[in-house]
Amino acid sequence: MFIYDSWYVAALATEVNSEKPLARMILGKPMVFFRTDEGQVAALEDRCMHRGMPLSAGPICNKGRSLQCPYHGLEFDITGACVKAPSQTSIPRNMQVLTYPVVERDSFVWVWTGDPEIADPATIPTTGPVNDDTFGLFSLLHLEYKADWKLIYDNVMDLTHLAYVHSVVNGDVQANVEAKLTISTDDDGKRVRFARELPNSVPPDLYAGFVFKGNCDRWQEMECSTSGMQLWNGALDVGCGALDGSRVRVGGFQLYTYQAVTPSSEGNSHYFSNGYTNVHLGNEEVFAKMREGHIKTLYEDRVIIEPQQVRLNETPGRPVVSLSADAAGLAVRRMFKKLLTAEMEKKAPPRPARSSGHQDLMEELTGGAR
Amino acid sequence: MFIYDSWYVAALATEVNSEKPLARMILGKPMVFFRTDEGQVAALEDRCMHRGMPLSAGPICNKGRSLQCPYHGLEFDITGACVKAPSQTSIPRNMQVLTYPVVERDSFVWVWTGDPEIADPATIPTTGPVNDDTFGLFSLLHLEYKADWKLIYDNVMDLTHLAYVHSVVNGDVQANVEAKLTISTDDDGKRVRFARELPNSVPPDLYAGFVFKGNCDRWQEMECSTSGMQLWNGALDVGCGALDGSRVRVGGFQLYTYQAVTPSSEGNSHYFSNGYTNVHLGNEEVFAKMREGHIKTLYEDRVIIEPQQVRLNETPGRPVVSLSADAAGLAVRRMFKKLLTAEMEKKAPPRPARSSGHQDLMEELTGGAR
Amino acid sequence: MFIYDSWYVAALATEVNSEKPLARMILGKPMVFFRTDEGQVAALEDRCMHRGMPLSAGPICNKGRSLQCPYHGLEFDITGACVKAPSQTSIPRNMQVLTYPVVERDSFVWVWTGDPEIADPATIPTTGPVNDDTFGLFSLLHLEYKADWKLIYDNVMDLTHLAYVHSVVNGDVQANVEAKLTISTDDDGKRVRFARELPNSVPPDLYAGFVFKGNCDRWQEMECSTSGMQLWNGALDVGCGALDGSRVRVGGFQLYTYQAVTPSSEGNSHYFSNGYTNVHLGNEEVFAKMREGHIKTLYEDRVIIEPQQVRLNETPGRPVVSLSADAAGLAVRRMFKKLLTAEMEKKAPPRPARSSGHQDLMEELTGGAR
Ligand code: FES
Ligand code: FES
Ligand code: FES
Repeated sequence: MFIYDSWYVAALATEVNSEKPLARMILGKPMVFFRTDEGQVAALEDRCMHRGMPLSAGPICNKGRSLQCPYHGLEFDITGACVKAPSQTSIPRNMQVLTYPVVERDSFVWVWTGDPEIADPATIPTTGPVNDDTFGLFSLLHLEYKADWKLIYDNVMDLTHLAYVHSVVNGDVQANVEAKLTISTDDDGKRVRFARELPNSVPPDLYAGFVFKGNCDRWQEMECSTSGMQLWNGALDVGCGALDGSRVRVGGFQLYTYQAVTPSSEGNSHYFSNGYTNVHLGNEEVFAKMREGHIKTLYEDRVIIEPQQVRLNETPGRPVVSLSADAAGLAVRRMFKKLLTAEMEKKAPPRPARSSGHQDLMEELTGGAR
Repeated sequence: MFIYDSWYVAALATEVNSEKPLARMILGKPMVFFRTDEGQVAALEDRCMHRGMPLSAGPICNKGRSLQCPYHGLEFDITGACVKAPSQTSIPRNMQVLTYPVVERDSFVWVWTGDPEIADPATIPTTGPVNDDTFGLFSLLHLEYKADWKLIYDNVMDLTHLAYVHSVVNGDVQANVEAKLTISTDDDGKRVRFARELPNSVPPDLYAGFVFKGNCDRWQEMECSTSGMQLWNGALDVGCGALDGSRVRVGGFQLYTYQAVTPSSEGNSHYFSNGYTNVHLGNEEVFAKMREGHIKTLYEDRVIIEPQQVRLNETPGRPVVSLSADAAGLAVRRMFKKLLTAEMEKKAPPRPARSSGHQDLMEELTGGAR
Repeated sequence: MFIYDSWYVAALATEVNSEKPLARMILGKPMVFFRTDEGQVAALEDRCMHRGMPLSAGPICNKGRSLQCPYHGLEFDITGACVKAPSQTSIPRNMQVLTYPVVERDSFVWVWTGDPEIADPATIPTTGPVNDDTFGLFSLLHLEYKADWKLIYDNVMDLTHLAYVHSVVNGDVQANVEAKLTISTDDDGKRVRFARELPNSVPPDLYAGFVFKGNCDRWQEMECSTSGMQLWNGALDVGCGALDGSRVRVGGFQLYTYQAVTPSSEGNSHYFSNGYTNVHLGNEEVFAKMREGHIKTLYEDRVIIEPQQVRLNETPGRPVVSLSADAAGLAVRRMFKKLLTAEMEKKAPPRPARSSGHQDLMEELTGGAR
């Protein structure tokens, strides 16, 4: 069960080039990504319309403008049109592979998996302070999880796991207990936000890279959509305006991480993430350590979430019980459930699944030559 | 298809300690076993009630009295009650994991998988002459079989396989053919017994460790229940009473082996076994050889039963034909069929299986915060 | 979905001996092959009628005339009859395993998988110029493909893949475009033939082993049935009669390859192949190179067909579009579809599949001792 009408990160921009096609399963759809010599990114169905061969197994040709099928040599351009059929003089009209709306934005390649009519690049979320020179990108990575996308959202939305999974002591205990929490869902039902404020609190270990005068005013803000989760952690010296009406949040310690969770197939997910900070700019040694910490964190999460998924699969019908800390995660689950329901109502009932693509092929092929 | 209202061996007693939880699948139920510092064994569902994480992945804490979930730190005691919820001040009433009736008896940890109301430790079978100083335990082991539990019962109940699978020549051929066989089922339908008597017979090779004066009076007795099979082989010098009305069976050569077959999941089984004898007591060298022979025997069985299972799976609808030697195995099958039918009639129709525990989780979580 | 009323290659003749039984899955049927000391080949169901053990795991005995089950020692002869039941004096009447009509012909062992009443060895196809001394066998091999049999037929029937998969430049481009192609289906609907003629054409690289005077008259002929595909490539010097009415095709360069595609289980296939040529007879060095080339070619095909199968499985319901070059392959698909439909209409509805052969076993065994 996926929400198709959404932008998803399909690749790091650096993964897509004009040397070798990139094959990737996105929401159960086999896709192939490549880049023209001019730098434009293309996203096609990774399945030749002739006999179903993965196009990603063939070469990029024609100055990056086409893929050549490795089986019988058909060539398809970035619009999905067949531009060469070497064994005959004309090209069948319907020899055309699917394309997907695709946008390269900052470090990521985004793809739209649903109705292309409503694919609006303006709805691609910002993934950190990408155009702000006072911030630096210290990490950018891609992992695969053998787990449903929603379990990964649960993980990020409930930060009480930090103490147990990552051995992170989250700073001033009393301030954490008294923290003011706000959870809200946007009017269009497509974004959940939560904000936590910890005024006048002892800076946590994590912020030790920055020197505060004394206590600090801390914030944690999360913006969550079907595309992923933007997490913004920060703190200024007390009284610098971080938590007052003006919310001028310049300087201090700030950390942005984007978590893009893209379902690959049922029960499997891609996890793309980046990290920006405003401290230690230009210090490559510190940035390397932060990158290592970032990767380690995701490995620590995965070693929890994958066995959790196995156990949940093994115990259908057994209930779960929620805690207060699940409030944000539950708001996200509710949002997803509404979006899923709305999509299912919008769509005609899908064609029933067949046991094998090959039976279709047989029917198709014996329907008569075209 | 399992018979739940039964005691099953879940572990060797030595496998359960207070250092590291033991995860084990028993009749399709994920269980975790651990031991308090006082030595008491606990058996919980290996699934945190919060979000389904295997509790066996976390530490034992609180002097062996609790398990800590490695995800968000909830702690559950040996009664399954949540005793700590670190992120909040009160503990939700229904935050409780399942427990299973568990008994440590001699070398094994037994667990009851069915209706706990009728779990009576008095029905745990004896697994050999455990309190008899004239016998010594020479072997104790645990194997896993990729095979249905019933195929393993078939194996043990039909000892004609000894000559082919284990190259054991079973002694006096003529005596074997003329042996008196009795098969009976207990009145409550929960035990099948068979007894074979071979009076005045040449001692088989297997008994070569013991010096008979000449021929011997041999017996083979089997007691079989859903918990396992107790096999008792023995022989006394002719005329010492082994087979007469008194049945005084002291001395001579005697061998007890218990075979506890515990289904793990559909098509997979645990096999626990022990062995006691009254000869060579204190001779560790001979005991080591007997242990080796015991292990080898089980490996020889497994290399038969696993391919048999594969073939039976591949040929649904193909019949089998029985031999006279199957009489005991068929009596056991009939007992199991009756017990299975009785359990199914007793139970309400089970909740229909879902494709994924995760769908349930979604429904549960979006049902509203509690 | 298989066509059962057909002969299939089950093994190379050299694979079947009287030392060790050969286990092989053919059209979803587990079979075991062995050879009597007199050299006769036998094909039995690889499943003991007693408790389903694979007979192939036991020894051949009785001068190659029987198989001994490794579990309880029953022996079955080449007619499938049980000839020994060591644990009892009489043999149950219905203790009989299935046999399959089997014929050794030239390098292959053929088996009939359908209705034995209509198994006529006369319908086994010839696999090359087996009795012609002017031809030599340079290659004979067996591969397994994780792909449906029909995809392998598609592959062979559409030779436009040669340029892309095997980097073979297929000779005179203009002659290829103008080649006269004939496709026909035999009246009984059991064979598709295609013939291609390239008169007065430049010899392709592949034929470089033979010295033509100048241009050549080339032919490609294919005869395709459910048993496999006979491909005959050849060329004579222009005007020697290769393409005129007389069709005297003696000498020149000629190459016969037989491709026997035998489904093993759903989505898996055996591929047996041989190769004969009339050039370089007796030159073992050149023959070794030709054999290498033959093997390499099949590996190159497999590396295409297996990913194609995966992709087709992943994209049920997605269409394919055919090219002119698919005409022969489509004729074959139509033939197969008709044969499949005819078989399904002939048969009574098959017994519904069970989830496990073991449930049957339980039912069978508890039906009462026989
Ligand atoms: S499958 Fe792509 S060209 Fe034939
Ligand atoms: S899953 Fe166990 S504490 Fe959350
Ligand atoms: S299974 Fe073959 S003899 Fe028993």
